[in-house]
Amino acid sequence: MKALAIDIDGTITDDKRRINCRAIEAIRGLKIPVILATGNTVCFALTTAKLIGTDGIVIAENGGVVKAGYDAKECVLCDGTECEKAFELLSKHFDLEKLDAEYRKTDVALRRNFDLSRAREMLSKSGLNVDLVDSGFAVHIKNKHINKGIGLKKVAELLGLSTQDAVAIGDSENDIEMFNVAGFKVAVGNADPRLKQMASLVTKGKYGAGVAEAIETIEGSFL
Amino acid sequence: MKALAIDIDGTITDDKRRINCRAIEAIRGLKIPVILATGNTVCFALTTAKLIGTDGIVIAENGGVVKAGYDAKECVLCDGTECEKAFELLSKHFDLEKLDAEYRKTDVALRRNFDLSRAREMLSKSGLNVDLVDSGFAVHIKNKHINKGIGLKKVAELLGLSTQDAVAIGDSENDIEMFNVAGFKVAVGNADPRLKQMASLVTKGKYGAGVAEAIETIEGSFL
Repeated sequence: MKALAIDIDGTITDDKRRINCRAIEAIRGLKIPVILATGNTVCFALTTAKLIGTDGIVIAENGGVVKAGYDAKECVLCDGTECEKAFELLSKHFDLEKLDAEYRKTDVALRRNFDLSRAREMLSKSGLNVDLVDSGFAVHIKNKHINKGIGLKKVAELLGLSTQDAVAIGDSENDIEMFNVAGFKVAVGNADPRLKQMASLVTKGKYGAGVAEAIETIEGSFL
Repeated sequence: MKALAIDIDGTITDDKRRINCRAIEAIRGLKIPVILATGNTVCFALTTAKLIGTDGIVIAENGGVVKAGYDAKECVLCDGTECEKAFELLSKHFDLEKLDAEYRKTDVALRRNFDLSRAREMLSKSGLNVDLVDSGFAVHIKNKHINKGIGLKKVAELLGLSTQDAVAIGDSENDIEMFNVAGFKVAVGNADPRLKQMASLVTKGKYGAGVAEAIETIEGSFL
């Protein structure tokens, strides 16, 4: 395998979003490029990359924005117009709270305090080209055609790799499409059952302990 | 002591800006509010707070912006007009590269690739109300009256504390004013000599090892 694509929240962090030091150390030991893939903002992703010490290759906003390194051009893969329309529609029915609005370029992130299935029903009737995805930390209104799989394809292209050359590690619903295109897929112990079912490897450890375990396996098998 | 104000880059990170796990663990063990104080952006500071697990109390842009918690209002303590004028002036003489421009609200951060003393001389003749500060990671054009000491005063006020109740830990020139107002000052082993001279304690350890050492001393003496 020639690259690692890894989710941040719930994978290298615990359920309170605190980074796990075993995961940090394991990632620092890798000799292949590390792609941080998150539903969070570009700024959050780049800060995390800097603090861990990876090369600033990031998939942010669930694939809406990617960067192939700190000094690389930011690639914005869609616009946020339909997401804003969906937000306006849902705002008529729910008391919604936007998160990180000032830093988001392609999607809308919302506090998880409303009825997701009712909201999905409303949107499905609206004809808007958007999905609602729950990362476990926020609900994202995102373009239907954008996901971490699309983001990984774009980053792989920029790096001159195939997505099949990449190991993906994740924990939640928004990692499914990244699993669809990666060559080897690892679900950490705390992962969503759907992700575990798709995985090449399910770690015993949860969160960062699972990441350390996965990286050990990858290094033993592929590197 | 009732709070810890701590610099990020070069203090809890190494010289490559990678976060130190000993520092993370030591900060997580503290029972007092932790204020992250940085020349970097609000978004960088809040991401670091989230990943460490502190309460989102931050001093960013060297005091230009402060926040007393994740959900607290952002306080912008000055505007960036004079800094932009200074940037335009210096741009006529140097090939300058702005950093994080899209995320900065009150200052201008520049790559460290130009003659600082020549630039300072030009600015001193310009009558502009700005300083050039070298954090070791970037050169900041900042408002003369803004610094981490001003930021700490504002945060302390918001938290209902005196700055004298705070321990400050830092490593570089832009931590001097924070040292001026804090009750107890710790310079990590890699700190600027001016900071070491002002310090109540100079740690043997550098970077994160120094932070862990400082927190052990603080806990033994004050908490």
